[in-house]
Amino acid sequence: MSGTATIDFWFEFASTYSYPAAMRIGALAQASGVQVRWRPFLLGPIFKAQGWDNSPFNIYPVKGRYMWRDLERICAALDLPFTQPVPFPQNTVLAARVALIALAQPWGKSFCQAVYRAEFGSGRNIGEPTAIADVLTGLGQDAQAVLQRAQMDGNKNALRVQTEEAQRLGIFGAPSFFTTDGELFWGNDRLEAALAWAKR
Amino acid sequence: MSGTATIDFWFEFASTYSYPAAMRIGALAQASGVQVRWRPFLLGPIFKAQGWDNSPFNIYPVKGRYMWRDLERICAALDLPFTQPVPFPQNTVLAARVALIALAQPWGKSFCQAVYRAEFGSGRNIGEPTAIADVLTGLGQDAQAVLQRAQMDGNKNALRVQTEEAQRLGIFGAPSFFTTDGELFWGNDRLEAALAWAKR
Repeated sequence: MSGTATIDFWFEFASTYSYPAAMRIGALAQASGVQVRWRPFLLGPIFKAQGWDNSPFNIYPVKGRYMWRDLERICAALDLPFTQPVPFPQNTVLAARVALIALAQPWGKSFCQAVYRAEFGSGRNIGEPTAIADVLTGLGQDAQAVLQRAQMDGNKNALRVQTEEAQRLGIFGAPSFFTTDGELFWGNDRLEAALAWAKR
Repeated sequence: MSGTATIDFWFEFASTYSYPAAMRIGALAQASGVQVRWRPFLLGPIFKAQGWDNSPFNIYPVKGRYMWRDLERICAALDLPFTQPVPFPQNTVLAARVALIALAQPWGKSFCQAVYRAEFGSGRNIGEPTAIADVLTGLGQDAQAVLQRAQMDGNKNALRVQTEEAQRLGIFGAPSFFTTDGELFWGNDRLEAALAWAKR
């Protein structure tokens, strides 16, 4: 294949391990010479199809307790601030809709990282529109204008379509990485392997 | 703490990711100067407590399909032979009982690795006593004598006690690594982090 190797980074703002992945992927992809397409989606409908109406970390508390400790260790190793958000999982529909708008702009990745930092770094409830507005304002954007565009039918539908695409690709969790030749890698701990595959 | 750093390696013979972990841990632990205690246990009773009567990879087929491909890639990268075993998961009670006996002997780790190789490398059904007997014979052991000792009440009970200990430690999957200061790490992809923690 000619041209730059590309990888799709599928993330969900409620996903705990998507936080370190979103913080790590930029520098690692650049070092590997891989281009990244950021693809926000919603896990809710995908979990529902598996019979879950909640995060599996809440449904299986033993696994949940482990995950929080594991995430805390990972953040400490990366020097990332960490706070367990309440409630968990958060309502991420608005954040994902805004991300779709934002990622068409130069400040899109910064928006996504700032949302993760607010949620898992500072423990803010990003389900509240004011939290998203604060992130937008912090990036020098007109928060009300962006929020309004995010809530228009066309954009709502675009997020639905993107979530359906994730499901069609066999994505069942986040973060997930999808290569142009159809390889799926799941989890922050598979980021390096996914980039290496994309460069083969 | 004085003395050699130690880590407990909790594994289940039916566990797919325990296969690469069992093959990797020896060299990595030696390079880190960490001693490893091999602790076979059964996931069945632990899964039952979470409401599962089967492998989650069978209960959630989308996740299962991903896992088999992921494991295939991991084995290829490690130059490990790989065959998807049928049936899956296998009945591992006998293998785990024999492992308890074997790990008190110098050939214990070799036995465990040979069982994994038979199962995930050659696709043998290790639920069949003949498969375990063949592994024992291949190691120069008196298969019938070992199998007989493995099926004695005291040994059966020892495996039960060990499985209960795993559950008490908060172990919910395999492979798991447990440090002497009480840190749990889950998954083949956490082996390096667990060894690094043990050496802190």
